[in-house]
Amino acid sequence: MIEPFSDEYFMKKAFSEALQAFEKGEVPVGAVVVANGKIIARAHNLTETLNDVTAHAEMQAITAAANLLGGKYLGDCTLYVTLEPCAMCAGALGWAQTGKIVYGASDPKRGFRKFAPKALHPKTELIGGVLETECSELMQEFFRERR
Amino acid sequence: MIEPFSDEYFMKKAFSEALQAFEKGEVPVGAVVVANGKIIARAHNLTETLNDVTAHAEMQAITAAANLLGGKYLGDCTLYVTLEPCAMCAGALGWAQTGKIVYGASDPKRGFRKFAPKALHPKTELIGGVLETECSELMQEFFRERR
Repeated sequence: MIEPFSDEYFMKKAFSEALQAFEKGEVPVGAVVVANGKIIARAHNLTETLNDVTAHAEMQAITAAANLLGGKYLGDCTLYVTLEPCAMCAGALGWAQTGKIVYGASDPKRGFRKFAPKALHPKTELIGGVLETECSELMQEFFRERR
Repeated sequence: MIEPFSDEYFMKKAFSEALQAFEKGEVPVGAVVVANGKIIARAHNLTETLNDVTAHAEMQAITAAANLLGGKYLGDCTLYVTLEPCAMCAGALGWAQTGKIVYGASDPKRGFRKFAPKALHPKTELIGGVLETECSELMQEFFRERR
């Protein structure tokens, strides 16, 4: 059983978003933003649907969370995302001074840890590998179907 | 005199966008996207106006250009921007496989060449320092006024 309001609990919510992306034929990545134990933004990758490379789950989640909060900094927020952010998303999370970032699967090919290791704000707490197997298997299934 | 349709010519157009940002109290960065010698997108930084860290000039220009072209890749396009892109924007320009990028002033503090040197697509042509003095002085004037 997953404990309520744990990192696993919120990653499950991000995973639900990733499943919605999968069903639309989008690379299955989902994200949620949490503040004070509540989800304030949900998003999934929509690059194909919107014909827009900037429509990654994290980017939409950052914009939505800032809209809701009425300010552009997310220092008191945690972003949960099913895949390690890319350089673009890490850069955005850095500008937003995001308090904590939790990701599921690693992305050795396009992940920020390889391409932009210092893009995050120095105070950001980073946790990787939460529900890694599920998040990773969903990605693998998506690309297997497309080969 | 600036030759029509040269890099300097289009950078002047990006500079006009940067001036619009300046007048709104935004960090003065402007961008245009050019395809077949025509400007297909114009944008300037709107992070304060929109309360959104993702609203950099380049990000908006990429989205607008892709909307106009009906496809998310900008391989046949040149993006002109008055300031060296940050890691976020370089990541987005990389995903879009942008054909050519021309920037004005360097950004040693937040520029992608320091934070995400491999974020661009390997085939992207990169030119820096076009109208560097004007672009750089506009930034300096903005921050001087705020001190």
